Amino acid sequence: MPNTKGYAAYSPTDEIKPFDFDRREVGANDVKIEIDYCGVCHSDIHTAHNDWGMSQYPVVPGHEILGRVTEVGSEVSQFKKGELVAVGCMVDSCKQCDSCKDGLEQFCPNMVMTYASPDPVMGGVTHGGYATQIVVDSHFVLKVSDKLDIKGVPPLLCAGITTYSPLRHWGIGPGMKVGVIGLGGLGHMGVKFASAMGAHTVMITTSPEKGEDAKRLGAKEVLVSKDPEQMQAHAGSFDFLLNTVPVAHDLNPYMPLLKNEKTMVLLGATPVDLHSMGLVFGRKHIAGSLIGGIKETQEMLDFCAEHNIVSDIEMINIQDINQAWDRVMKGDVKYRFVIDMQSLKD
Amino acid sequence: MPNTKGYAAYSPTDEIKPFDFDRREVGANDVKIEIDYCGVCHSDIHTAHNDWGMSQYPVVPGHEILGRVTEVGSEVSQFKKGELVAVGCMVDSCKQCDSCKDGLEQFCPNMVMTYASPDPVMGGVTHGGYATQIVVDSHFVLKVSDKLDIKGVPPLLCAGITTYSPLRHWGIGPGMKVGVIGLGGLGHMGVKFASAMGAHTVMITTSPEKGEDAKRLGAKEVLVSKDPEQMQAHAGSFDFLLNTVPVAHDLNPYMPLLKNEKTMVLLGATPVDLHSMGLVFGRKHIAGSLIGGIKETQEMLDFCAEHNIVSDIEMINIQDINQAWDRVMKGDVKYRFVIDMQSLKD
Repeated sequence: MPNTKGYAAYSPTDEIKPFDFDRREVGANDVKIEIDYCGVCHSDIHTAHNDWGMSQYPVVPGHEILGRVTEVGSEVSQFKKGELVAVGCMVDSCKQCDSCKDGLEQFCPNMVMTYASPDPVMGGVTHGGYATQIVVDSHFVLKVSDKLDIKGVPPLLCAGITTYSPLRHWGIGPGMKVGVIGLGGLGHMGVKFASAMGAHTVMITTSPEKGEDAKRLGAKEVLVSKDPEQMQAHAGSFDFLLNTVPVAHDLNPYMPLLKNEKTMVLLGATPVDLHSMGLVFGRKHIAGSLIGGIKETQEMLDFCAEHNIVSDIEMINIQDINQAWDRVMKGDVKYRFVIDMQSLKD
Repeated sequence: MPNTKGYAAYSPTDEIKPFDFDRREVGANDVKIEIDYCGVCHSDIHTAHNDWGMSQYPVVPGHEILGRVTEVGSEVSQFKKGELVAVGCMVDSCKQCDSCKDGLEQFCPNMVMTYASPDPVMGGVTHGGYATQIVVDSHFVLKVSDKLDIKGVPPLLCAGITTYSPLRHWGIGPGMKVGVIGLGGLGHMGVKFASAMGAHTVMITTSPEKGEDAKRLGAKEVLVSKDPEQMQAHAGSFDFLLNTVPVAHDLNPYMPLLKNEKTMVLLGATPVDLHSMGLVFGRKHIAGSLIGGIKETQEMLDFCAEHNIVSDIEMINIQDINQAWDRVMKGDVKYRFVIDMQSLKD
């Protein structure tokens, strides 16, 4: 009988259903984790639906994993049984390339994603956190403070690090005006982090009704991007723009908001409309950013413990996952679903 | 009788024709210049044709101006009569804003372009270098070494500084691999400068037949961007890409050429196709760049004198300007037309 219970997509179109499978034996450098909670990311749905054309079935999604250590390998000294730990979007990398040496495992050409990546140990593809347990190389296991409200921790492992990493990389802090474009799972973490880092944080949204919530999350101002007068009033005033919009959109209206020489970072994986004029006048930049390395992810979790930051979440049972996905696709969640994995064990 | 002879566009559709007009009196800080040569830039044609929708007629184009000082104002000590000087794309700015103080006059909100800009002294719009003389604030007058082949100097004032500035700003030098995309007026200067700065310079073009010329200009390699195998062989190897393509095009095939964290700079004013994935994986950048400040333009001219760099040009008389414009629009010039202004004085 397989050692692990999970939920999987068996095809791009079916609902996801129970799926039992085997995790590997605990190797010398491995940590086995009993999963308590797993966050629901839009990437889970894209992969299950084969939107990126690379999925192998069954797909067991989930890369926002929180749980307790149940076993450690013979070479593992930094974790002990019962400890609260987390796993994010990566479970392995080559550890030898320049990216790995620089703590940027996310750019390692042989990085292994937590799910739907070729599995170098078990063959087939890796299986994610919609499951009762997982076995992971200890380098990719993060420590989580018991001080946090742990139910809101899982989304930090993807939505959290994805927004924290560019804010840190571009040196966001006091005296800077930062715009967060789009208020979803990523955007709401971006507002929390930029505010906690001391920046004057502005929520930039097409939906004025999101303003109140943005202010509760830490935004000092709300800028409605459909209002040309408001956009003009903020022209040339931003030190940084964090664009969390996950669907095709026009970047051109946002470029005049930036000060000269400053950067808008794109986090979504999507086509965008762009005219170079918005970059040429003022030597402005557009860049991309993808999660963060393991060292930075630990730093982010420690920052969250220090500033008491977690994700706003809605808790569900695994049996409700298909309805939850429908709501994610409609943007109907504030701001992230988390699965209580006890529901899979009962 | 007006004090200056010139050539002007009287409408978006007519050929350009003779036009006499008055330059202002020489003010205390002004320099009067008899124009010997003026380069032909594609922007001249865009403005004459009102492609950007802002032109006021008559338009006297020309912002690649070389000539000799004939008179200086009472406060001007740095120039003297008979001296070889140049004027580029700018003739005035506020001199007080942060951009001006930083030597980035090109980003001053009140910067006055050499032609087709509201003229703060004479009213109407400024008139450019397709003319016998010009009167310019001394801050915007550049010194030119007599050592250079001066017929090739005028294009340095636009095509030259436009490519020199980003190469300097991004610190191009020995040990770096630089790709120049597009071999026209800008591209041929980009290849010369990147090579002179010591970079391993690669010409990236859709036209294999341009390879030989690119190597003559200083390129060490030629990469044909339509060839997927060649593109794959160069993947992840470039420290910098200088994109000189002036028309709408797809940026996505070029992004994989860059190393992680590196930048492609756009010099053209054009819509582009872009998918954020090319930026997200590897935290890559796209930026824009616009000519350069006055201090940097002088530095560029001094660099050219030191390294014996001028533009490859084809000399014409002013009476041939309409045919020359037709050829510019077809890309049929190696690599820049320069007008011998003696033809306007005879």
